[in-house]
Amino acid sequence: DVVISLDRGDPKIYYTFWKNVDDKCKVTIKASDLMSYFADFDEGGVFYQLPEFSEAVHQVHRVVGNAVTEGRYIIGGTGSSQLFSVALCALASTVNVTPNNNMKKKQIPVVCAEPYYSCYEEALEEEKSEIYKWQGDANTFDEEGPYIEVVTTPNNPDGRLREPVVKKEGGMVICDLAYYWPQYTPITAPADYDVMLFTLSKATGHAGSRVGWAIVKDKEIALRMIKLMSLVTIGTCHEGQLRAAKILEFVANSYERLANGKLANGKLSNGNPEVMEQPLEKFFEFSHRMLAERWTRLRAAIKRCGAFNLPDYSPQYCKFMKKTSHPNPAYAWMELKTGEDAEKLMNELKIRTRAGPKFGVSSKYIRVSMLESDDTFNQFLERLSTLE
Amino acid sequence: DVVISLDRGDPKIYYTFWKNVDDKCKVTIKASDLMSYFADFDEGGVFYQLPEFSEAVHQVHRVVGNAVTEGRYIIGGTGSSQLFSVALCALASTVNVTPNNNMKKKQIPVVCAEPYYSCYEEALEEEKSEIYKWQGDANTFDEEGPYIEVVTTPNNPDGRLREPVVKKEGGMVICDLAYYWPQYTPITAPADYDVMLFTLSKATGHAGSRVGWAIVKDKEIALRMIKLMSLVTIGTCHEGQLRAAKILEFVANSYERLANGKLANGKLSNGNPEVMEQPLEKFFEFSHRMLAERWTRLRAAIKRCGAFNLPDYSPQYCKFMKKTSHPNPAYAWMELKTGEDAEKLMNELKIRTRAGPKFGVSSKYIRVSMLESDDTFNQFLERLSTLE
Repeated sequence: DVVISLDRGDPKIYYTFWKNVDDKCKVTIKASDLMSYFADFDEGGVFYQLPEFSEAVHQVHRVVGNAVTEGRYIIGGTGSSQLFSVALCALASTVNVTPNNNMKKKQIPVVCAEPYYSCYEEALEEEKSEIYKWQGDANTFDEEGPYIEVVTTPNNPDGRLREPVVKKEGGMVICDLAYYWPQYTPITAPADYDVMLFTLSKATGHAGSRVGWAIVKDKEIALRMIKLMSLVTIGTCHEGQLRAAKILEFVANSYERLANGKLANGKLSNGNPEVMEQPLEKFFEFSHRMLAERWTRLRAAIKRCGAFNLPDYSPQYCKFMKKTSHPNPAYAWMELKTGEDAEKLMNELKIRTRAGPKFGVSSKYIRVSMLESDDTFNQFLERLSTLE
Repeated sequence: DVVISLDRGDPKIYYTFWKNVDDKCKVTIKASDLMSYFADFDEGGVFYQLPEFSEAVHQVHRVVGNAVTEGRYIIGGTGSSQLFSVALCALASTVNVTPNNNMKKKQIPVVCAEPYYSCYEEALEEEKSEIYKWQGDANTFDEEGPYIEVVTTPNNPDGRLREPVVKKEGGMVICDLAYYWPQYTPITAPADYDVMLFTLSKATGHAGSRVGWAIVKDKEIALRMIKLMSLVTIGTCHEGQLRAAKILEFVANSYERLANGKLANGKLSNGNPEVMEQPLEKFFEFSHRMLAERWTRLRAAIKRCGAFNLPDYSPQYCKFMKKTSHPNPAYAWMELKTGEDAEKLMNELKIRTRAGPKFGVSSKYIRVSMLESDDTFNQFLERLSTLE
């Protein structure tokens, strides 16, 4: 048997949806298109950002209802990972940093409740910033003074809904909402934090585009972030923005068709589905169904196997789906009942997973991607069954 | 009169070339294309990099003869600016950094001979790395121990050819070759440094794509850079890579048509120019001619005006053009003869330029982009003439 990888969140599960609309949702870029550094000449605009990208981000959040965007800055990045660093740097640099008598500058602590997304720690330790540093679990954080708490909700790896846990004076929050989309969790209210991060990878499955966006309330923080983006990478790839705009608009338009045959953006569709060129099953219905089916199959397999615990999630009313639905997290957070090393057991089955210690917790846990291809997911269940 | 901007190097000068081949050199991306994080599954490949991008980079350097790429790692980045940070971080982290008794970690000094590219200093001061720091002019650098020297050749802002100036033990070099292309300077030999940076912006004028690449000799440094790229942005935008591959291949193919009617890559062209779909004047001939014309006009205008000095550049034999040619730098580095503030004078003419102090030198200097649109360049000469 070959090794199968479920350790990354490569969103192959959405491929068949997009394959079906390949030509209806394509972009063509001519030799002289998108040549300039500059894409938005509006006062107050983000110079490197295509206006249609900003507009598509506003539109999709308006349609899904998962984040407040009115009056906020939309700042594109090379995936949300770049925006995470840029937001940390912008927030940390607003704090008055005075070198103490050891001549060592104070680094602002960055914390996140465990289990936390493994890449936060890894990225911060490799970046080696002078003004902020990774300080691990937010639950045990008890220093005075400024700090930054990362709130990932729904959480990666365990799918739980979260709020800040530290709640001290001087606290700043970055809210990572990569998975706050209807296929993963019921949308109960628009998220409303000072700095919110989203990524195309997990919204629609276009991970290769490396397109993320921050929604930022405070003008000073937003301008610092734009300044940093301009210095670090002179903005982001315009081709990626164009593609993201097309994809997001395609998804949003499929829900914004109004009874009078007009789209919410004022374009006439003649009430004719042909004109809309939309598939019968829309994106969030497709992706929710796919994930729900996988979760049902996984829970059955885990029950038969008997070796693991899975978290339970309560159903909630989803304002977007207009019905009560169950969360279907992007990852299965599996706990080996014996308390032994779960990654080791999986390695014996030639299944590559991500081990608990990378998320700040015990090795009895592993994170398994629910977003891989059908083939990989089926293989995974089959190999699990050998433990029965 | 409206303000005209010649302070950035937005390469609008190449627009008309690409406009003429708009449909011959376009890319179409379907809804399900480029979805995965992964693009190269080869052992030893860069996981996020399209093989056609790596191949196009090899091909264009082979054709132009401006850099050694055989046996080197090609590492794509979001513009060369991202790769600059990533290379600094990779190089600095190879050095054994021991905190001294002040508990302050040693930051590796980063130097560059003045006048140096303004963004190096700005980027390093905003990034606030714990392991390296900007230390200004390489000519006056006299510390012991490890350091990193940035060698920009031809130099931004003054167009001079350069070599390392510090040459001490423990020195590491990053060579920024953004302007080492035939339109700017004669190609005398393939560049052969340990870490070399290039960017699509200045090679072909596609600045909005934010595509750069590093050519790296040492395996350990290359692997550190790839690791950093994977943590900071999980690679680069695949749409941008696809576009860059198309553009670079288009340019390279126009020079690789062989006498036997085959392209160097083995594809048959039937010896028929139609099949190649190439314009009559190829890219480097077009861009060299455009820049040479502008330099001739600028030198005449400066002579009439009398207020400024311009650097002189010696002609050299260009192995690519197969003739002796004059350098045509991307920027005019203008010195106000009176020694007064040159930016101030330009501001009075409503011409936005970049002032000497940003490059580490006197305010009598300004950098003026030679890459702007015809309209802006003509306006610039017209306003200069009012000083006569």
